[in-house]
Amino acid sequence: MLGKLAAVAAAAYGAPSRDHVVAAPGTQILLPLVAALVQPGRAAVLGPTYAEHIRVAALVGHDAQEVTDVAALKHADLAIVVNPNNPDGRTVGANVLLAIADELRSRGGLLVVDEAFMDVGPAGGSLGGDVARGNIVVLRSFGKFFGLAGLRLGFALAAPEIVSRIDAMLGPWAVAGPAIAIGEIVLADATWVRAMRAQLDQEARRLDELLTNAGLEIVGGTSLFRLVRTRAASELFHHLGRAGIFVRRFSEQRTWLRFGLPNGEDAWARLRESLADAAVCRD
Amino acid sequence: MLGKLAAVAAAAYGAPSRDHVVAAPGTQILLPLVAALVQPGRAAVLGPTYAEHIRVAALVGHDAQEVTDVAALKHADLAIVVNPNNPDGRTVGANVLLAIADELRSRGGLLVVDEAFMDVGPAGGSLGGDVARGNIVVLRSFGKFFGLAGLRLGFALAAPEIVSRIDAMLGPWAVAGPAIAIGEIVLADATWVRAMRAQLDQEARRLDELLTNAGLEIVGGTSLFRLVRTRAASELFHHLGRAGIFVRRFSEQRTWLRFGLPNGEDAWARLRESLADAAVCRD
Repeated sequence: MLGKLAAVAAAAYGAPSRDHVVAAPGTQILLPLVAALVQPGRAAVLGPTYAEHIRVAALVGHDAQEVTDVAALKHADLAIVVNPNNPDGRTVGANVLLAIADELRSRGGLLVVDEAFMDVGPAGGSLGGDVARGNIVVLRSFGKFFGLAGLRLGFALAAPEIVSRIDAMLGPWAVAGPAIAIGEIVLADATWVRAMRAQLDQEARRLDELLTNAGLEIVGGTSLFRLVRTRAASELFHHLGRAGIFVRRFSEQRTWLRFGLPNGEDAWARLRESLADAAVCRD
Repeated sequence: MLGKLAAVAAAAYGAPSRDHVVAAPGTQILLPLVAALVQPGRAAVLGPTYAEHIRVAALVGHDAQEVTDVAALKHADLAIVVNPNNPDGRTVGANVLLAIADELRSRGGLLVVDEAFMDVGPAGGSLGGDVARGNIVVLRSFGKFFGLAGLRLGFALAAPEIVSRIDAMLGPWAVAGPAIAIGEIVLADATWVRAMRAQLDQEARRLDELLTNAGLEIVGGTSLFRLVRTRAASELFHHLGRAGIFVRRFSEQRTWLRFGLPNGEDAWARLRESLADAAVCRD
């Protein structure tokens, strides 16, 4: 039942074949399975990034640490990179990642690349086509780009031996029928994907303009979210929250706020008005 | 987001509180997490039964064996019972299971009761109300009873410490939005549940009549499926398959066939006609 979905996903994500793809009910549930592919050892997560990677690596027994230098990943047993990164949008070049994978391979190490936002990442940035090398697992998220996060559909791209191991843990019927049906249709629709990417780019530029006009400094992001830096982050978080606008804040980076794309003209208007009010408050 | 669903499921399945419930995208994906709650040791699965339990127990490192005597479960580190059982419908009394759980507890052992078919099981048969004892995990499947297996929604009922451990492995967003929404509505609807159970009972009796009239011996089942024994199991499997009717056969019990309830009058007619043809063939 998942064979066709795997084939469509392999084509969409550039994996060598359907045998290099395993579907799951979201990528989150894959994190402990992937982290457990290597014996407990040293896990390095390129940060700051999505906090679940370090939590889960520790949960399955690794000595999990955040590193800020890409080169430090080489010394790990399990190296994890979110690429493009959440929340700052930083990208690491495919050639850099492949070199790290080569070094890790010589010591039995594994490179995990979480490409949850690669749908809006740089062309040629994905390692999906390189997973046959054997010690690379690429995670792809269906829902974020397609506006269907609640559907729970994600994929691991990896060598067939790894795919089989993950598959054995997920067991039969891992993915819901509606997710299979929708995934097969949407992933096969390259025209839709291109149109979606163009639309998101346009909306991200619109958001940048709105945020910049409100006096906020944009320091990163992808076209699915923008990261701003402001000394008034905490006040702005609460101000927006009172208007029903939820932005992400970061306990480790107290001047950061991450803005998602507003959904619909009402939401755009609400954000514009709320930011204007905030500007008045600061004057 | 899953708090309300957990509360509704606790009430529906008789668990002490929402803290004794964790929701998952189907129970299958819970099997390795539950089997890994005890250190690798001896796993005993009351059989013959659903083959995934023994496969998964072995996968996570247990010496997994099938036992046919309930009393043999007492000597395991991990004891697994499907109750009512699939495919034969055998049930083990709650008092018997609780006594086994008590013996296991004294040695740090865990009892897992897969109640995937308890929605159509005997009144008072569930251990959902007993999970606070600490070494009992009850698995409940939403989809089978409600005809929504493809939705992927299942639950583990257990002591809060175990619920937290499973929750940590599943991570946030384990369950799809549609499954949460449908689960909250349907599980809260006791009238619907009673009506569904009565309808399934009626349909099971109708299926019994059809199978008996075709000269098949019914040896077990629940009102979601019936198990028949026939020396012509293999021929009948292929004969029905050619008519587009899929029944389950069993490599270890070659005279068994499991019939699901036909879905709709067309399916009932097709089964009746195909069984009649088979009877003609045998004359």
